[in-house]
Amino acid sequence: MASKIRPVGDRVVVKPAQKEEVTKSGIVIPDTAKEKPQEGTVVAVGAGKLTDKGDRQPLEVKEGDKVLFAKYGGTEFKLDGEDMLVLRESDILAILKGD
Amino acid sequence: MASKIRPVGDRVVVKPAQKEEVTKSGIVIPDTAKEKPQEGTVVAVGAGKLTDKGDRQPLEVKEGDKVLFAKYGGTEFKLDGEDMLVLRESDILAILKGD
Amino acid sequence: MASKIRPVGDRVVVKPAQKEEVTKSGIVIPDTAKEKPQEGTVVAVGAGKLTDKGDRQPLEVKEGDKVLFAKYGGTEFKLDGEDMLVLRESDILAILKGD
Amino acid sequence: MASKIRPVGDRVVVKPAQKEEVTKSGIVIPDTAKEKPQEGTVVAVGAGKLTDKGDRQPLEVKEGDKVLFAKYGGTEFKLDGEDMLVLRESDILAILKGD
Amino acid sequence: MASKIRPVGDRVVVKPAQKEEVTKSGIVIPDTAKEKPQEGTVVAVGAGKLTDKGDRQPLEVKEGDKVLFAKYGGTEFKLDGEDMLVLRESDILAILKGD
Amino acid sequence: MASKIRPVGDRVVVKPAQKEEVTKSGIVIPDTAKEKPQEGTVVAVGAGKLTDKGDRQPLEVKEGDKVLFAKYGGTEFKLDGEDMLVLRESDILAILKGD
Amino acid sequence: MASKIRPVGDRVVVKPAQKEEVTKSGIVIPDTAKEKPQEGTVVAVGAGKLTDKGDRQPLEVKEGDKVLFAKYGGTEFKLDGEDMLVLRESDILAILKGD
Repeated sequence: MASKIRPVGDRVVVKPAQKEEVTKSGIVIPDTAKEKPQEGTVVAVGAGKLTDKGDRQPLEVKEGDKVLFAKYGGTEFKLDGEDMLVLRESDILAILKGD
Repeated sequence: MASKIRPVGDRVVVKPAQKEEVTKSGIVIPDTAKEKPQEGTVVAVGAGKLTDKGDRQPLEVKEGDKVLFAKYGGTEFKLDGEDMLVLRESDILAILKGD
Repeated sequence: MASKIRPVGDRVVVKPAQKEEVTKSGIVIPDTAKEKPQEGTVVAVGAGKLTDKGDRQPLEVKEGDKVLFAKYGGTEFKLDGEDMLVLRESDILAILKGD
Repeated sequence: MASKIRPVGDRVVVKPAQKEEVTKSGIVIPDTAKEKPQEGTVVAVGAGKLTDKGDRQPLEVKEGDKVLFAKYGGTEFKLDGEDMLVLRESDILAILKGD
Repeated sequence: MASKIRPVGDRVVVKPAQKEEVTKSGIVIPDTAKEKPQEGTVVAVGAGKLTDKGDRQPLEVKEGDKVLFAKYGGTEFKLDGEDMLVLRESDILAILKGD
Repeated sequence: MASKIRPVGDRVVVKPAQKEEVTKSGIVIPDTAKEKPQEGTVVAVGAGKLTDKGDRQPLEVKEGDKVLFAKYGGTEFKLDGEDMLVLRESDILAILKGD
Repeated sequence: MASKIRPVGDRVVVKPAQKEEVTKSGIVIPDTAKEKPQEGTVVAVGAGKLTDKGDRQPLEVKEGDKVLFAKYGGTEFKLDGEDMLVLRESDILAILKGD
């Protein structure tokens, strides 16, 4: 899929994991001060931000990484019928390992 | 068309793709937290931002690229009767390849 | 006219083109998310912004250029009875060529 | 646990201490101008922010540190069923020692 | 008058020109999106902003210059009973020449 | 006490002085535009902000200094049952001497 | 008095001049867009801001200077029973000379 899209700059394309957020009781008391992150898999990464010296800052995440990201940060779109998100690397909170 | 317009700095002129966003049911439940991106073709690119050292930072997108861009970022105008958008390269999310 | 005014820093003086925005139907449904740009001719340009190193960053636009600019960015004034605008070069979106 | 997650950039994963904030009288008169911090233990730290020169700025906190952090700064998530927070190092106020 | 006041940093003291903005009809339909600039004469200039290298960035305007400035930017005060304005050089839009 | 806590970066821990702000008349007419500072004693200081070059910028205040600080800037917490504040050095306005 | 207080960084302690702003008519029509400055005498100055290179940027104002300052910028406090203000040098608009 990375062959179909190339994020610009420090952007990353992520395929969100299936949401299993069904609350048993059916009631959700939202904690407005906190923003729950979401899981996903990195599908494509940009070449990195261009510095003042003309170098690209390589991204820390790479294709295939399972990541935790801030839901508010991304922009949704469809790629071959699948839901995707483009976001900046700074919206990726952590890389999940060995899972 | 690029011969008719030259974006300034890190700006890009994009010709938006035809919108095919007609919802079958006719009902749209907007997801306010998310901003849907739009597709288009790059028609002209600027020379790039000038750094403190007096160099231009070349753009990553080029004429002819099919791109995904944030709709809110651009400024609409007409060129030879066609709808166009000028936006900063930072409003371009990704380059669509081999399509 | 450039002999009568010198914009400071990265500013530019533009003479806006005559507005021909009369809608045939007389009804305008404003697209609030989009800001329509306006055309004009560059009348005078500043010496450019001073960098930390003490150099001036020369402007990309020059006297006589036909330009597309963001209407909200400028400050209106009259020069010899004609409507003019002073704006920063960053408010100039593109240079129109061969017109 | 650090083997399961790697924060990105200058981020840190913290396991919050058990809250013992039950007010005896049951009445809380919130002091809106002040934000109470919370205690926790650092579970994993990122590689640090990338500078313009391409170096990573190592974090000051390390795995195992007991820390005081600003509650509003973090993003909550669950790791192996336990409540965790990802936050930027700048949201960590102080390291508690010899406790 | 410059002998009586020295603006700090990149500030400039301007003596505003007499306002002759009396509208004939007596009715003003304000154009809120636009801010009309005002004319004045530079009375004193600061030594310039201090850069990270410890140099002062000399101002582009000088004592005696007739200038166009953004009205919202300045701070009014009286010097020897005359209305004056202190503003940053960045609030000065253009220098009027040969008038 | 400094042996028990180490502020991160450019942060400082301050023990606020006892408040003796009881107004005789019992009436307070708040001056909303002004923020009254508070006195306190520096209990612990951070190692300083990390610059782009990888150096720490040492703080100007040191343990034991009596300081004047902006009340809105800090975060309250308890250390060994005593009220403390963590704040950035930039929220410290002045050092009181020879008192 | 400078021996009793040392402002931190680029801060300055100013003793405001006695206010003689009693309006004869007793009516004040505030000009909300403009902020009237106030006069005062510099009582103590900080060592200056620390640059990225580890140098202090010396202040332009010095003890004893009569200055014009933006009233909204400062923080009021009492020193030996006298009203004082701590403000950043950037809130000082101009130095009044030979008065």
